[in-house]
Amino acid sequence: MTGKLTGVGIGPGTPDLLTVRAVRAIRAAKTVFVPKGKNGKPGVALTTAGEYIPETAQVIEMDFPMVSISGEADRLDEQWHANADIVREALQNGDGVFLTLGDPMVYSTYSYIIDFLKSQGVSTETIPGITSFCALASRLEIPLTQGEESLAIVSMTQPDDVIRDIVKMNRNVIVMKASGRNEFLAQLLEELGLEEQFCRVSNIGMANETVSSDIEELKGRIPYFSTILIKKEYEFGN
Amino acid sequence: MTGKLTGVGIGPGTPDLLTVRAVRAIRAAKTVFVPKGKNGKPGVALTTAGEYIPETAQVIEMDFPMVSISGEADRLDEQWHANADIVREALQNGDGVFLTLGDPMVYSTYSYIIDFLKSQGVSTETIPGITSFCALASRLEIPLTQGEESLAIVSMTQPDDVIRDIVKMNRNVIVMKASGRNEFLAQLLEELGLEEQFCRVSNIGMANETVSSDIEELKGRIPYFSTILIKKEYEFGN
Repeated sequence: MTGKLTGVGIGPGTPDLLTVRAVRAIRAAKTVFVPKGKNGKPGVALTTAGEYIPETAQVIEMDFPMVSISGEADRLDEQWHANADIVREALQNGDGVFLTLGDPMVYSTYSYIIDFLKSQGVSTETIPGITSFCALASRLEIPLTQGEESLAIVSMTQPDDVIRDIVKMNRNVIVMKASGRNEFLAQLLEELGLEEQFCRVSNIGMANETVSSDIEELKGRIPYFSTILIKKEYEFGN
Repeated sequence: MTGKLTGVGIGPGTPDLLTVRAVRAIRAAKTVFVPKGKNGKPGVALTTAGEYIPETAQVIEMDFPMVSISGEADRLDEQWHANADIVREALQNGDGVFLTLGDPMVYSTYSYIIDFLKSQGVSTETIPGITSFCALASRLEIPLTQGEESLAIVSMTQPDDVIRDIVKMNRNVIVMKASGRNEFLAQLLEELGLEEQFCRVSNIGMANETVSSDIEELKGRIPYFSTILIKKEYEFGN
């Protein structure tokens, strides 16, 4: 009988922040799919979940480039179909898992491919994961949002003016994918008088974790896995 | 030696959505604190985490009313101090955990008391949890936010015009604490032409879970544990 594919949120990058359900799914898997990404991403997924992967499981690295944001849609579409073939074939051996850092439904590659895989006859299930921003808040013991407040989650891949509006209008803001655009973010914080109202956590829970509320550091090079909390009515220490 | 207090996010209400770290902390606890809430809340926390609580652990229900939103600050302040005394005394027996549904830093009572407990000499640690909105997204297999999008998380305890602005301006919105104000939310969705652009999940993962995209149902009585996803460019089935 063909197995199903379970998208597993493995959390921010620490083995003990996987859920019990995630661990069970990985332990039962015949195949473990890991997105082949840039900047060492698959390495982190495998390191994080590695201790739960059965010795007998096959690990397959896959490249699911974003069809939607590329000019070469035809070629990419072909690759997506080829990948779906690989997934379907591997599932002949039993259930498979697709590891995804953080939560599968928050800025993940998996969220792009799930509908496509379903359309290709793959049956799926999804297990939520600890987001980097929840890990950050517990790490710093700073509430993300309370009582009558709201929270905005913004990606630095969005247009400058949209980012500016969101940061302006919200008391609590989480900034994702900041590396590469961190200089613009630093400028924006200065422009809005918020240079002391933020904290950056990089490589959270890992050996090379760094925490900083220093605006000058934010202007420099920051690690790929960086999440930033902007909190306008909070006193951050440096 | 006095133990520490660990705030444990136990997730949306399903035992296998606790993290490995949360399970370990609960299993090692000498005392388990549960917020004494209304609408059966403590019941759900104990049911969710019950299988991990050691038989030898003492379970203490506590009432930490919100000092900030009450007119009777003095009386409440007294109760907070009395509670801190209880916590400190219990920690003489070793480590304790404070169970909190969802994530401890997203609209939780725990987030209000952590600084106070620290000021009272209690040493703390916090373990993040699966939020109801991440559980909802994986349950429905609908991405919360992708690529160049953002996500707003709003509580129905906020003022009407703030809620209206946030729902208006964001493509993806999570609405928390909707029960009690669900009729206003339904009106707002109709006003903004979004009556087919939402989905409600109540009691997620529990035996009495319900899922509905029916605006008429949203006008009626909805369960206390309800989370709503508004997604403007998504086709919800009914």
